[in-house]
Amino acid sequence: MSIADHELSGLLVKVQKLKPLVHNITNVVVTNFTANGLYALGASPVMAYAPEEVADMAKIAGAVVLNIGTLSSEQVEAMIIAGLSANRHGVPVLLDPVGAGATQFRTDSALKILREVKVSLVRGNASEIAHLVGEAREIKGVDVGESGSDAAANIELAIRASQELGTVIVITGKEDIITDGDSYRIISGGDALLTQVTGTGCLLTSVLGAFAAIEDDILQAGTAGLAFYGAAASRAAERTAEVGPGSFQIAFLDELAKLHPHSLKGHAAVKEFVTRKVEEV
Amino acid sequence: MSIADHELSGLLVKVQKLKPLVHNITNVVVTNFTANGLYALGASPVMAYAPEEVADMAKIAGAVVLNIGTLSSEQVEAMIIAGLSANRHGVPVLLDPVGAGATQFRTDSALKILREVKVSLVRGNASEIAHLVGEAREIKGVDVGESGSDAAANIELAIRASQELGTVIVITGKEDIITDGDSYRIISGGDALLTQVTGTGCLLTSVLGAFAAIEDDILQAGTAGLAFYGAAASRAAERTAEVGPGSFQIAFLDELAKLHPHSLKGHAAVKEFVTRKVEEV
Amino acid sequence: MSIADHELSGLLVKVQKLKPLVHNITNVVVTNFTANGLYALGASPVMAYAPEEVADMAKIAGAVVLNIGTLSSEQVEAMIIAGLSANRHGVPVLLDPVGAGATQFRTDSALKILREVKVSLVRGNASEIAHLVGEAREIKGVDVGESGSDAAANIELAIRASQELGTVIVITGKEDIITDGDSYRIISGGDALLTQVTGTGCLLTSVLGAFAAIEDDILQAGTAGLAFYGAAASRAAERTAEVGPGSFQIAFLDELAKLHPHSLKGHAAVKEFVTRKVEEV
Repeated sequence: MSIADHELSGLLVKVQKLKPLVHNITNVVVTNFTANGLYALGASPVMAYAPEEVADMAKIAGAVVLNIGTLSSEQVEAMIIAGLSANRHGVPVLLDPVGAGATQFRTDSALKILREVKVSLVRGNASEIAHLVGEAREIKGVDVGESGSDAAANIELAIRASQELGTVIVITGKEDIITDGDSYRIISGGDALLTQVTGTGCLLTSVLGAFAAIEDDILQAGTAGLAFYGAAASRAAERTAEVGPGSFQIAFLDELAKLHPHSLKGHAAVKEFVTRKVEEV
Repeated sequence: MSIADHELSGLLVKVQKLKPLVHNITNVVVTNFTANGLYALGASPVMAYAPEEVADMAKIAGAVVLNIGTLSSEQVEAMIIAGLSANRHGVPVLLDPVGAGATQFRTDSALKILREVKVSLVRGNASEIAHLVGEAREIKGVDVGESGSDAAANIELAIRASQELGTVIVITGKEDIITDGDSYRIISGGDALLTQVTGTGCLLTSVLGAFAAIEDDILQAGTAGLAFYGAAASRAAERTAEVGPGSFQIAFLDELAKLHPHSLKGHAAVKEFVTRKVEEV
Repeated sequence: MSIADHELSGLLVKVQKLKPLVHNITNVVVTNFTANGLYALGASPVMAYAPEEVADMAKIAGAVVLNIGTLSSEQVEAMIIAGLSANRHGVPVLLDPVGAGATQFRTDSALKILREVKVSLVRGNASEIAHLVGEAREIKGVDVGESGSDAAANIELAIRASQELGTVIVITGKEDIITDGDSYRIISGGDALLTQVTGTGCLLTSVLGAFAAIEDDILQAGTAGLAFYGAAASRAAERTAEVGPGSFQIAFLDELAKLHPHSLKGHAAVKEFVTRKVEEV
């Protein structure tokens, strides 16, 4: 079943109108790009890391996004303080487990956050998500594979992770998967150029935070965020694929700022499925 | 009374010729943009944060810029060490109280710096400056309001803050205000696109640092910095307003590098007033 | 003697094919640009700083790049842990002693790393390298001078530093010098616009890391990295010299992504000399 564009467009309009405050505790590689991407979308980014202030900031935010890309023990503690404050005040928390599996410290830190904080959505690539559920099988590379079997395996992984971790799971790759454990959706769009620019995954998680800030149905919020993000990337790639990743990065920010209710048309598509009944991939 | 362009142009030429070293202790969101903006202007940026070296770096700098955008207790201590070293060696210190009022920790940290270090100039939006002088009235949003009454209120706020804190105050918004408590100036120019790119306020404070490094009259230095910064933004917006904030950010760096003595013409204007006698707004 | 392009081109192809993982412990100003530059080149960047994980990350990397641009005592400790892990696992370590000489803390930290870790290549400007070997004579500015005598002095400095520190030395400036103490090479190319964009030196060191990851002969790897980096800069400058440093930065990332075996032609040249027998400068 396809989800009609107009069901998602209302959420974009809401983000642009309400300009939700997204509190990011993120890595040093992507801070500038994340802030500019959120501004371009129409949201209001804030970065605040000190344990003395993260609870206060999380409390007034529309969403809290935790990203372990250049984590430290102290930062993980601040993330937990921020996350618990968000939990107390009904603010959704999103987690980007960057590099989970690359080192034990990253895997352990991501799991510690998931144990102590109620997380509404986790976004990662297949390898990162697999490591969160202790999956031993080797994941080829860090992106969702192109073969049908890999796609099917990733859907299964996303559903299992969602059920085990009790959170909406997003696995990004050639196509993106989002699931709440009951149903799942496949979002196509985006462009391979996204993989040549650092922080496009991290910014996506923060963009999903902006949508989660204005829509309680996290599955629907995440679906809208994935679709519009992919549409902006697809439009930017049309203009810059021949030029290079530097120009793509700038065009992508421009396109995020130009998103409007009809931007999905021809640039992103969403299909919905009931869990365990894969109708089509 | 209008200030003639040529009174300000000499300061731009001096910055471009002397390439003053601006020592920034700033936030992780804007470091790259701040460094590139200072290079584009013709100044020499340096970022140094370790308590072991900040006094040495501040001593050889032309100006020290302290920015609490992603502060920590340790960083505030380093800022005070750097500020005191600058004070001892006659190097001007500028403060950007990012987010003062958003959390108590930010307000307290900004005030602590102002108590312990002699600061020559503070730049913020109306809300941030209001919180530094304990103003209880709610500030609408974070930018200078558009109505005449808001503009008048912000001028009053700037003058009061300047007199209470004993420093030149800059409040940026739709129009920019600078005052030393005795007279004030209103600088028009700039472009609303500045609010869609992260770090444009932070970079501005560092640019004011570059001008303060080459001119002892901080009111005049600040005026020149504000005017030329606004002119570069206005010129960049002419080229990119239809394209988007990504392209604007890049064009803005290009325009900073192209500034020359006649760049203000048609792109920025400065009016001067005597304190408490608002001739015109 | 000139080194033929085809001797270097094979290394570029190898980088693009093998996509080596380059583990950077670098400064907060240049992290985003470094990651995007490495992606554009075809390598795989990772930033990891926590003492709990740097040994694990260094072990699986193709090269480790240490950059003291915004160092702290804690970060220097992490660099040494990462460096020793790299040493144990045969992974080359590169050092960028940003600002050595500007403060004693930086000089001391760079020397501490050099004492405790086996470093394969150090890249800096003439002033930074001079301070590593305790050279008392004042270096004019931070770039290689333009006069013949400065060029000769810098060659001598590079050779002396290489012999004293037991590592390949790269001194960048108007022309770049690389030496293993036995022979040296002069690479021309690049563009003065590189000095108007922050992090171009830092990214270069990381690019040299990518080449060192796929070629054991560090002199040859470094030569190839310098030549292709200069060629990309030269090509980007052709397109953007009239526009400005903002546009140059983006075009440079685009050109790094377009590098191919014939990119050196007309845009970079390498000459080789035997130590102490300066044939021509």
